[in-house]
Amino acid sequence: MSQKKRTKIKDILQLAEANVTVTVKGWVRTKRENKNVVFINLNDGSTINNLQIVGDPTKFDEATLKKITTGASLSVVGLLVASQGSGQKFELQADTIDVLGVADPEKFPLQPKKHSLEFLREIAHLRPRTNTFSAILRVRHSMIFAVHKFFHEKGFFNIHTPIITASDAEGAGEMFRVTTLDLDKLPKTEDGKVDFKEDFFEREANLTVSGQLEGELTALALSEIYTFGPTFRAENSNTTRHLAEFWMIEPEMAFYDLEDNMDLAEEMLKYLVTYALENCQEDLAFLEQRAKDEESTKKQEERSELSLLERLRFVADNEFVRLTYTEAIDILRNSNYNKKKKFQYLIDAWGADLQSEHERYLVEKHFKKPVILINYPKEIKSFYMKQNDDGKTVAAMDILFPGIGEIVGGSQREENYDKLTNRMKELDMDAESMWWFLDTRRFGTVPHSGFGLGFERLMLFVTGMSNIRDVIPFPRTPGNAEF
Amino acid sequence: MSQKKRTKIKDILQLAEANVTVTVKGWVRTKRENKNVVFINLNDGSTINNLQIVGDPTKFDEATLKKITTGASLSVVGLLVASQGSGQKFELQADTIDVLGVADPEKFPLQPKKHSLEFLREIAHLRPRTNTFSAILRVRHSMIFAVHKFFHEKGFFNIHTPIITASDAEGAGEMFRVTTLDLDKLPKTEDGKVDFKEDFFEREANLTVSGQLEGELTALALSEIYTFGPTFRAENSNTTRHLAEFWMIEPEMAFYDLEDNMDLAEEMLKYLVTYALENCQEDLAFLEQRAKDEESTKKQEERSELSLLERLRFVADNEFVRLTYTEAIDILRNSNYNKKKKFQYLIDAWGADLQSEHERYLVEKHFKKPVILINYPKEIKSFYMKQNDDGKTVAAMDILFPGIGEIVGGSQREENYDKLTNRMKELDMDAESMWWFLDTRRFGTVPHSGFGLGFERLMLFVTGMSNIRDVIPFPRTPGNAEF
Repeated sequence: MSQKKRTKIKDILQLAEANVTVTVKGWVRTKRENKNVVFINLNDGSTINNLQIVGDPTKFDEATLKKITTGASLSVVGLLVASQGSGQKFELQADTIDVLGVADPEKFPLQPKKHSLEFLREIAHLRPRTNTFSAILRVRHSMIFAVHKFFHEKGFFNIHTPIITASDAEGAGEMFRVTTLDLDKLPKTEDGKVDFKEDFFEREANLTVSGQLEGELTALALSEIYTFGPTFRAENSNTTRHLAEFWMIEPEMAFYDLEDNMDLAEEMLKYLVTYALENCQEDLAFLEQRAKDEESTKKQEERSELSLLERLRFVADNEFVRLTYTEAIDILRNSNYNKKKKFQYLIDAWGADLQSEHERYLVEKHFKKPVILINYPKEIKSFYMKQNDDGKTVAAMDILFPGIGEIVGGSQREENYDKLTNRMKELDMDAESMWWFLDTRRFGTVPHSGFGLGFERLMLFVTGMSNIRDVIPFPRTPGNAEF
Repeated sequence: MSQKKRTKIKDILQLAEANVTVTVKGWVRTKRENKNVVFINLNDGSTINNLQIVGDPTKFDEATLKKITTGASLSVVGLLVASQGSGQKFELQADTIDVLGVADPEKFPLQPKKHSLEFLREIAHLRPRTNTFSAILRVRHSMIFAVHKFFHEKGFFNIHTPIITASDAEGAGEMFRVTTLDLDKLPKTEDGKVDFKEDFFEREANLTVSGQLEGELTALALSEIYTFGPTFRAENSNTTRHLAEFWMIEPEMAFYDLEDNMDLAEEMLKYLVTYALENCQEDLAFLEQRAKDEESTKKQEERSELSLLERLRFVADNEFVRLTYTEAIDILRNSNYNKKKKFQYLIDAWGADLQSEHERYLVEKHFKKPVILINYPKEIKSFYMKQNDDGKTVAAMDILFPGIGEIVGGSQREENYDKLTNRMKELDMDAESMWWFLDTRRFGTVPHSGFGLGFERLMLFVTGMSNIRDVIPFPRTPGNAEF
């Protein structure tokens, strides 16, 4: 049973010549048979392509053939020959077939027909056995690897920032509490409050919403670092864009100003998209066709102008447009969409927070290119962003992608201790509990910058899927922690 | 201020020739000066090596020179010349020095003297600026990258298994609860219990103790996968070996038996150790010296026979010894340690769980090699391990390392639905809530195997550190969630 005895289907399909005996193992996708021949399409997850097994029914006993149904697992030994039909280059003439595990056709949910994405979410434990989800998971792996490769080759160090934390990176997101207290017998203080001194960490603790602050601590020692880990939002949002648990990439760089930051983010996004185009061709071809089929059910005006692969090439090949928030407001205010009240939220004054509809207008209608917006009003951005000399704006940057909206958000950080603590006072923040963060501005502070890339947003863009629950293996959303 | 204008010290020290003008930015480690010359050792985290800056004090104003103290950040432009002293190949003759940020010598805690590891844990936000911790973090990055590289090149897919889960992978570890309920106003059911239907996930939810079960789901579709993510144990253990939050690597492979599993684990460990030896030479040389200095304070009999680098080479070069639990019990029972009652727990009967002292005896005294123990009594192992034909043992494997004990634990998995569910019944487990896990044995089950590598255990071995809190950037332990 040693694994050395099997060859992956991906490797078989890349062989230069046929006429070798191989062992393959995998799961039956489909079977067709008549009196003279049985055809089995076998998939082992190494590639989107199945290997066609061809057998002479008289060579196998009936009980075995009966067990070969969609979802059953087989070990097949046979001679690899040039394929008779069209499709694949090779097919396998079966000598022996062992059924490793059956899949009762009355019970196995993944019969060879079209299943809705909603149904597949309910059987997330089995959906990796479909073409769509195996393709997504392989692309997801490629993107994970490409992220590490990109930063490694630039000399960045990957830092594992903590998941459980007593701090709140932005004061922004609602957080999940982490506790070992017995909820049926909560310890109380003398004045009747829950006594968190009795909890595991002897204080209140939460799941992190961002690794940025800890990332800054290490960047201000190692120069260039990145995090890549899970982050959490306890927002009760049942949308196609929100997850309670998602993965973020957060580079943080000493000695980078806002322009360096933009250059790095643009380079990274182009690298990742190019990596997918070069390394995931078969899976992307499948996903492109899937997206086309899905689009064809939509009204003409809701369809994308570009196909999935065209969108990817477009990002890889074009310079992103860079402009200030102020310039963007002017464009939006004077747009036909604003004048004809096509926006749900009309833009009339500087200072307005941009909605997804405005971001998509800029990217998809006005510039028809990815856009980097910089220098936002300080009121709508986080406390740690570098205050510009105008007194009104901060050195923030958001990168906006077609169909996605914001895919990257970042900024130069305020490195001046006095400016930073004054801003925290204005916002009524508790500086004392953040003594360790402020220490970086007290001791050897330097100009530095960073940004965050939502990994599932990237996955939506690269795979052309439209619901974020379909680009992570086991999505966590309100009411859903199954599997 | 553009980052393009600075050169990393790592790159400077690899230049073929001097006599070029460069800009460096970093943090002052030490400064010495007299009337004629000022020497500054600057570090930017890209390497353990400092660049020596040499300046003529008359060229700089007194206020600037005064601000150059340990911990201050500088930008220096100058001519790179061959070094006059011993030490480095090059030094930098400073033309201009800008102090980016000061570090008040009265307040900055990292003055150039020896600090205890205990003290540095209290300032984990600053310890990456020390030689020891910057070396550890660089090695940690290299090991992260090597893990991904190893599996990627073998065609494994990285799977992000969920952090928040309603299931308990082993029934083993104590778990952290994740909740958004207001603890001051807990909703109750009619019979007075906490009403988890009102919680975010509409049921009880915890932090994962292992990604294995979800890993199995995807391996039984994609063939070969690995996880690399944070895992959690809410055990109140204040030891040098336990963390509440730590990172695990868990490969899971369809069509692998126990021997394939051992082969993969041994190959992986050798690959990782070899990668460190080849890619982290300077950091390991520093850590080797650090470990030697630490050892020299110990009694002769407590010192290691091998130095750090010798231990790493030893693992990279030697085949691991493989034997059964039963053989190990015989060796231990007949050992001098057992007869002379040197073990705290004496071994007298088959079935005993092995303690760390026994594992270390086998590795360090008896075989003097890494050891793989297989086929443990089923009573001391997890429910999902493959039941051997003897009815007594399971196809488990533990890999034991010198100084560490268990570094890898794994098994072939029980793929037979009836055997697995019978074992769950014996252990009084709730099979119903694990319907999704059991589905993998109902539909297309295949022989498969996997293991877990505790990443911080690996880091202890590779860095020679002795406390697990020193090999993760921000350790989480009972009472400690600072930073």
